[in-house]
Amino acid sequence: MTRRKLRSSRQKTRLPRRGTSSDGPIRLYGRHAVIAALGNPERDCRRLSATAPALAKLRGDLGEDLGRPGLTVIETERDEISRALSSGAVHQGLALECIPLAGLSLETACATSGNAARRVVVLDRVTDPQNVGAVLRAAAAFDVRAVIVPDRHAPHESGALAKAASGALDIVPLVRVTNLARALASLKTMGYWVVGLDRAAAVPIAGGAPDGPVALVLGAEGEGLRRLTRDGCDVAVRLPISDAVESLNVAAAAAVALYALTVADGAGA
Amino acid sequence: MTRRKLRSSRQKTRLPRRGTSSDGPIRLYGRHAVIAALGNPERDCRRLSATAPALAKLRGDLGEDLGRPGLTVIETERDEISRALSSGAVHQGLALECIPLAGLSLETACATSGNAARRVVVLDRVTDPQNVGAVLRAAAAFDVRAVIVPDRHAPHESGALAKAASGALDIVPLVRVTNLARALASLKTMGYWVVGLDRAAAVPIAGGAPDGPVALVLGAEGEGLRRLTRDGCDVAVRLPISDAVESLNVAAAAAVALYALTVADGAGA
Repeated sequence: MTRRKLRSSRQKTRLPRRGTSSDGPIRLYGRHAVIAALGNPERDCRRLSATAPALAKLRGDLGEDLGRPGLTVIETERDEISRALSSGAVHQGLALECIPLAGLSLETACATSGNAARRVVVLDRVTDPQNVGAVLRAAAAFDVRAVIVPDRHAPHESGALAKAASGALDIVPLVRVTNLARALASLKTMGYWVVGLDRAAAVPIAGGAPDGPVALVLGAEGEGLRRLTRDGCDVAVRLPISDAVESLNVAAAAAVALYALTVADGAGA
Repeated sequence: MTRRKLRSSRQKTRLPRRGTSSDGPIRLYGRHAVIAALGNPERDCRRLSATAPALAKLRGDLGEDLGRPGLTVIETERDEISRALSSGAVHQGLALECIPLAGLSLETACATSGNAARRVVVLDRVTDPQNVGAVLRAAAAFDVRAVIVPDRHAPHESGALAKAASGALDIVPLVRVTNLARALASLKTMGYWVVGLDRAAAVPIAGGAPDGPVALVLGAEGEGLRRLTRDGCDVAVRLPISDAVESLNVAAAAAVALYALTVADGAGA
């Protein structure tokens, strides 16, 4: 079945802004995050601090100019980098000062085209930066087009988020919307089936998800989907997990659900 | 197919010790980790420090004596608990001083019995405590019998590990072995198929894993399985992930693979 385009296209999603409260420079750290940022033409990179061995390895991989002619590069000591970051940041000798990415509109990021099965992930108030980063990483692994979050209930770009994303922050657009219920309605208009992951759902995800473009909606661990969000879903499905635990980590749940959708598409090979 | 029991049973696995370098008390923190520890009769709990509201909620859930008559309970301030833990620990007003669990032998933890499809997870040098904890959580979600790690290349029980496990440290045995290759041989003798998860494998996990008890082997992110470990596997399978990322987080990969095995067993409902 494919979603019939009967819905009104009146629903407008306001142009989301990204990094609204943190438009100033941020510091990304860790090899994967820094390499992905340097390789993203949309990313405004300002200044790289690196230890001598980390810089040598990076130049070996990316070329002498790191693919960024004119970038300010500061060779420094490991401790100096640690001091500039939050305590305990595993930076692997690399920290990159850069500007948060400009926001994409929901429509631009999620427009369906061609016959490819398109997938997006929607997060309902997942506020922990590491969890959002880890969801981005799982999303990149399963070719998800965008991760959509409510602007006021989601973390901004940060080093911790980017580290957990392991490069995926510069691969998968993180789309901030003003109103999540309205975004779900817009996704339906664009041809997506909105599928909520809900512990209490009767239908298992294997066989329970519709064919065609899917917007997979996940809530915060423990809390699950809010009622308004659940009401905005076409169908709710559950993962076959044991009663021994309350839930999977949200990023693990996202990875499992995206795998299940991939297999259902016959693309599990 | 079922594994034919042709292998020699000569291979012995030494009785593993657990928490060898940390047999002294450890501090678990966070609601799920503390509740699971208090509910585990094998866990030697010494002293609970809790804020007044966290303690009231805990007593509401577990009863006035927390199911642990005689446990020393200290009502204290949030900051006092924070100071006793490592920086940034999200303790939710609860810290429990207790003793690491006694080790189970591989044979005790993994003995196959009955017709139930049995599953264990083997980690090849996953050294990050949070990753090991997150793998335990995924393992509990998919009814895994044990998580097996090489004693010298795996973290000991700690608050950070238990927090990431979200209670699963007291649900799924963490079995420490001296020699991983020998442990794989023992698992085969016990009737397990040893299935390695390997990015370079030709066979996708959907349809690629054998029926019957499975020991799922995962390596560290980026490094994958060491050659000796890969050689000890009956079959190597891969997850259908994008070339856009180097790997999934090891706990997300474990969750996806365990789901795939669950569905293959016809238990995905």
